[in-house]
Amino acid sequence: MTARWIGARVPKLDAPAKAAGSTRYLSDLSLPGMLHGKIRRSDRVHARIKRIDVSAARAMPLVHAVITAEDISNVRFGHGKDNTPLKGDRVRCVRDELAAVAAETEEAAEAACRAIRVEYEDLPAVFDPEEAMRPGAPQLHEGRPDNVAFTYDYSHGDIARGEAQSAHVVEDSYELQFMTHCCMGASAILAAFEPDGKLTLHSLTQVPFLYRRDMAAIVGMRPEDIRVIQPAIGGAFGSKLDIYPYEPIAVHLARATARPVRIVFSRQEEFLASPTRQPARIRMRSGCDAEGRLTFRDADLVLDNGAYTSWGATTPFVMMQSVSSLYRVPHVRFKAVVPHTNNPYSGSFRGYGNLQATFAVESQLDQLAQKLGADPLELRLRNSHEAGEETGQGLRFVTCGLKDCLESAAKMSGWKAKRRPRHDERVRRGIGMASMLHVGGGAKIYRSDGCGSALSIDDFGKATLITGSTDIGQGSETVLAQIVAEVLGLSVDRVKVINTDTDVKPWDVGVHASRTSYVAGNSALMAASKAREKLLGAAAEQHRVPPSELSLRDGFVCRGEERLEPLDKLVRTLHFSGKHELLATQAYFEPGSVHQDREFRGNVSPTYAFGTHAVEVEVELDTGVVRPLGVWAAHDVGKVLNELGLEGQIEGGVVMGLGYALTEELKVREGRILNPCFRDYHLLTAPEVPPIRMSFIETEDPTGPFGAKGVGEAPAICVAAAVANAVFHATGVRFTRLPLTPERVLEGLIAAGVTQDPAAPRSGS
Amino acid sequence: MTARWIGARVPKLDAPAKAAGSTRYLSDLSLPGMLHGKIRRSDRVHARIKRIDVSAARAMPLVHAVITAEDISNVRFGHGKDNTPLKGDRVRCVRDELAAVAAETEEAAEAACRAIRVEYEDLPAVFDPEEAMRPGAPQLHEGRPDNVAFTYDYSHGDIARGEAQSAHVVEDSYELQFMTHCCMGASAILAAFEPDGKLTLHSLTQVPFLYRRDMAAIVGMRPEDIRVIQPAIGGAFGSKLDIYPYEPIAVHLARATARPVRIVFSRQEEFLASPTRQPARIRMRSGCDAEGRLTFRDADLVLDNGAYTSWGATTPFVMMQSVSSLYRVPHVRFKAVVPHTNNPYSGSFRGYGNLQATFAVESQLDQLAQKLGADPLELRLRNSHEAGEETGQGLRFVTCGLKDCLESAAKMSGWKAKRRPRHDERVRRGIGMASMLHVGGGAKIYRSDGCGSALSIDDFGKATLITGSTDIGQGSETVLAQIVAEVLGLSVDRVKVINTDTDVKPWDVGVHASRTSYVAGNSALMAASKAREKLLGAAAEQHRVPPSELSLRDGFVCRGEERLEPLDKLVRTLHFSGKHELLATQAYFEPGSVHQDREFRGNVSPTYAFGTHAVEVEVELDTGVVRPLGVWAAHDVGKVLNELGLEGQIEGGVVMGLGYALTEELKVREGRILNPCFRDYHLLTAPEVPPIRMSFIETEDPTGPFGAKGVGEAPAICVAAAVANAVFHATGVRFTRLPLTPERVLEGLIAAGVTQDPAAPRSGS
Repeated sequence: MTARWIGARVPKLDAPAKAAGSTRYLSDLSLPGMLHGKIRRSDRVHARIKRIDVSAARAMPLVHAVITAEDISNVRFGHGKDNTPLKGDRVRCVRDELAAVAAETEEAAEAACRAIRVEYEDLPAVFDPEEAMRPGAPQLHEGRPDNVAFTYDYSHGDIARGEAQSAHVVEDSYELQFMTHCCMGASAILAAFEPDGKLTLHSLTQVPFLYRRDMAAIVGMRPEDIRVIQPAIGGAFGSKLDIYPYEPIAVHLARATARPVRIVFSRQEEFLASPTRQPARIRMRSGCDAEGRLTFRDADLVLDNGAYTSWGATTPFVMMQSVSSLYRVPHVRFKAVVPHTNNPYSGSFRGYGNLQATFAVESQLDQLAQKLGADPLELRLRNSHEAGEETGQGLRFVTCGLKDCLESAAKMSGWKAKRRPRHDERVRRGIGMASMLHVGGGAKIYRSDGCGSALSIDDFGKATLITGSTDIGQGSETVLAQIVAEVLGLSVDRVKVINTDTDVKPWDVGVHASRTSYVAGNSALMAASKAREKLLGAAAEQHRVPPSELSLRDGFVCRGEERLEPLDKLVRTLHFSGKHELLATQAYFEPGSVHQDREFRGNVSPTYAFGTHAVEVEVELDTGVVRPLGVWAAHDVGKVLNELGLEGQIEGGVVMGLGYALTEELKVREGRILNPCFRDYHLLTAPEVPPIRMSFIETEDPTGPFGAKGVGEAPAICVAAAVANAVFHATGVRFTRLPLTPERVLEGLIAAGVTQDPAAPRSGS
Repeated sequence: MTARWIGARVPKLDAPAKAAGSTRYLSDLSLPGMLHGKIRRSDRVHARIKRIDVSAARAMPLVHAVITAEDISNVRFGHGKDNTPLKGDRVRCVRDELAAVAAETEEAAEAACRAIRVEYEDLPAVFDPEEAMRPGAPQLHEGRPDNVAFTYDYSHGDIARGEAQSAHVVEDSYELQFMTHCCMGASAILAAFEPDGKLTLHSLTQVPFLYRRDMAAIVGMRPEDIRVIQPAIGGAFGSKLDIYPYEPIAVHLARATARPVRIVFSRQEEFLASPTRQPARIRMRSGCDAEGRLTFRDADLVLDNGAYTSWGATTPFVMMQSVSSLYRVPHVRFKAVVPHTNNPYSGSFRGYGNLQATFAVESQLDQLAQKLGADPLELRLRNSHEAGEETGQGLRFVTCGLKDCLESAAKMSGWKAKRRPRHDERVRRGIGMASMLHVGGGAKIYRSDGCGSALSIDDFGKATLITGSTDIGQGSETVLAQIVAEVLGLSVDRVKVINTDTDVKPWDVGVHASRTSYVAGNSALMAASKAREKLLGAAAEQHRVPPSELSLRDGFVCRGEERLEPLDKLVRTLHFSGKHELLATQAYFEPGSVHQDREFRGNVSPTYAFGTHAVEVEVELDTGVVRPLGVWAAHDVGKVLNELGLEGQIEGGVVMGLGYALTEELKVREGRILNPCFRDYHLLTAPEVPPIRMSFIETEDPTGPFGAKGVGEAPAICVAAAVANAVFHATGVRFTRLPLTPERVLEGLIAAGVTQDPAAPRSGS
């Protein structure tokens, strides 16, 4: 039977409300008696706190509470258990939380924050992660004398053998910048204690069930007494994977005042105190034999952890996958260290380290192609994995559309024709490509990577899916509705998806690792299939036909082309006549992935997404301006579930990748952020976005719902490498540091002699 | 095993929020952009509408919409399909809705309502229901020439034979007044169209699923596109069983303005335009033989339907049960007619006609006892049903605690001692009693009288019950939590009950007919028992013990006294290890009751509640003041589930019954309400409430959850008859008209010669 809803172009279910401006974000919510919370942050990058004087603040009008570390149980939390909600003895970065105020108005709370007097004793600070590891560097945390929070050592094969087999070897260093999520909705929380002592949190968390547990430990409650409600979110992109200090602070303020307390970051605060993408320095060597077969890859990474440890410190898990398994490489070594500095601390960000790693891996592919004198496309095709392979790290590619992606991106972009060098103009064009590998069905990092679903069909034939999963704008709600609609032969507008309340929805690990369409999709599919079976069984009994001859279509039970009975009538018959049954099913889907072992080996995701982007750029040699002219994105999505949604995901990812490549950098100098506003932080604007064309490779993964894979993170990952490769193609200059701002590019072009230094005396005059 | 939670004194789960003042009632809710709706009502009791001029109102500032019948699809609705949201051609009572306004503020909406000009042509009106049935009376509705909306004819046995067997016969007329619910929370609704065209209603309805269907028909939508959310309610008592015109009006205003619209009645409007208890005139004859065995009962009732037909018109269903089946009566005839008048129209009210019927039945019991020269208690005991009997109407009493109730009320009240006549003082004391019979497990009036439940236990051992049922303050939420807690061996504070959103909760017929503890209780019991079975099965497997040796207690899986494992750990094991199952179950409970046949025969409820109240009064002969001194209420509750909740229900019911007996009357004269405020409508105040003592007869109904029956309506039913009987005992004067205000009582005492008319010349002077 032809799919009616799977693969269709279905507008996101939340689109009408968003377009109409009636969506209520957290900053639109209020509760009776609600107070406004504000945080007083550190002025220093590293200092001992001698005294915090809140007496003036407490005496101010409209102020209900001013709290410092002394007033609360200041429990250590976070992935490294090295952070506290408020800082009592020491600040380690400028965003550090010293005190918090709850007041009747935001203005009063701000005024009180300003009235808090803090006496510091400055401590020596360190801002460079490599310096931080040197003996004698200022130590940030007890028990970490070398400031290293985490180290990741991985290898397969034998690098020495790989080197020995190599005809060509390249080695380079890559430097990736601080970047921040720039969610349009700033960080926010609304904490309210119920009169029975239970806590309701309106929160932006991506992982509500883990959040409940972790928050309970921080604020000294039982997890079962915390309810998390997830209002519409103005962007997350990984930034809501952790708990941040402002969240328990809001709870402590609500407790201190016995009033609901809402904290909403200002835009400046959002730049200052929301997480960042890890800056990374990557030293990489790789080689290939004379036929262009990759021989080895050897990578050393230093990530700037910042002052505290968040989930971001675990991004090497993902980085090493691309180093180990993007293309066939028999010998791989990967080492990452994550030292503390007095910089703002890093978090999780769409791609989870993969943008950094892929930038190095895919730059080196082009560097090897150049040495080999091969077309970069050909080199990639020669080394591409195929379905059925298992990589050195143990990733199993049940399906793999990488070759198709490479060929599709090349074809769409007119690769062959555009690769001809045109090296005479002052404005030069070039085309580059890069591929990516990413988990496509979650990553088993918790005890379960699964998702629960409860499905019911009411007497009017409307289906309600209560899914454990979380939609942070990626459109999974719509995809889940399509899956249910497809299985039950209903129109999508007759499917309601509920997913925002831990009191109502079943367990799910949360939204991360591009898992929702895959994991929650499979879970919804299970629940819907059970419902279908029940319905067809009942209809078969009623109409005395074998269930196998029946189907559900367009709201009817059908036998072949014949419509036997409307679905709602069948449900009512089940409900009201004789059986008195409601049509309700439930399911829990656990993906077939495994925890990796201590050597980081194991199939961490049940399926993997692949993609190739080709990017054409124009480089103004006289100004250093790099202008993207087009992006051609080919993605192995397994199966298109919602074409419109996929296009949106990929366009958004490409734009995010272009920002990473060209314009976005959170400028941190000596621990201070120099550009905490959209004027100075250059997010790509609409006129700067080139045409984006895409193709979807349908490898129909047998484990995915209708064959689909998750691609939430994929499209952001390989843009930067493709851009750098295109700039190299245009100019012959290899850039290894992002973003490719006009200043940096011009400097590089001058250094390479492509452009003459306008400040230098003209040679010919 | 001793019950831990069943029978305990558990404070209502919603009590902390209510006590703290943080409960958000509908009038506390608002939505962004929300407008305020107000209704312009009729000035006339019966008139043709010549013209409604809304032009001035439409031109007023802050006004967004003014609608009349012309502007909407004015669909007929209600139990008699004789009402419309707005009235286009004719008004039939003073509350009639002519036009409605949506404006930015309530004040602006009110001002616009006042600015609407209406031209009427008065029509002859009728206010007495018996007059309304006479030829030539003004006709209210097409197709109802005699104004009769419904007639109910019931009989069993043969009245003539019954009369022939009688040694004593009494006959009297009883007249029952208009009464209104006086909910502290006035009628209200908040209607909001979502940008996708679907409708969300914050509504006070007691029957959300039927409401959805009926509302859809009225406002021209698909039922599946309407979501009903039920916020905390400030009282219902049956008044929210119907849809009333203000509800579709709010929807039409929301549609006209594309904004959310909230309508909240003023207190005066609540008196004017919320439903009433049916005024009834009951002509009854009954007899007994020389041994005091009841021989027959013959009743003719006229109910004032008012201008339109609501569910209230069906109260004869319940009235006839008490006439046919309260005590053994071999020959019964019952006829009720429900004619229209130009009075405000009646609705459903706790007891659903039973207060009226029981007043007549139980007054006649005392009248017969007097003729017979028997103690009223003895006469009642002689005729009382016992468990296992089926009445002439086909009601089957699986359990019946009526005799125990009679004896318990007599014992508690010191009946024997107090029945001695003391006829010499000017302030006389008397004691009276009355019993009642009411459905105790719903009434099958819809295709199903059942309730669905979905139960889940999360990883922290917290149970969430999503019940289809509705809590309108009766405390059923708490009882359901207790049932779940008992079965799962959890503390009640680890059970969350969710019951307020048709998008989330399973089907239920709604709250009516004292069904929730019984029907929803059985449903919750089924779901919890399934969960218990799963848990014990899993624990048995894990600990290699037969499940029969295991139990759940205090949050642990136990074997005898030994605690094997905490429940939350067991749930986590099921979830995270191996099986990857969530602990979730569901159930639908359909009671074993039947639809009555065309002759009103059949066992309409699976169980029946019985009760006896003794009331002692003091009557001031010189003033007519009747002062209740004490109420002793004995109730067959099947099994005490929540003692505290039961006490509250019975206290509330007794106070409502005392108001009916003594003070409450909505004074309607020529269709106009004379006392639309609490100053003039005398609701019993706290100092006027006498001590109330109660006993619970536990007949342990085998069909009820833990043996329980529903008693939501029971305690209001037989108070008035007991009061009238007590006044008779005190004064020798039989009052057959309520309420027993000082004026009415004094008049009766004077007419009977017990008190001398102070206005008349003193005989001796």
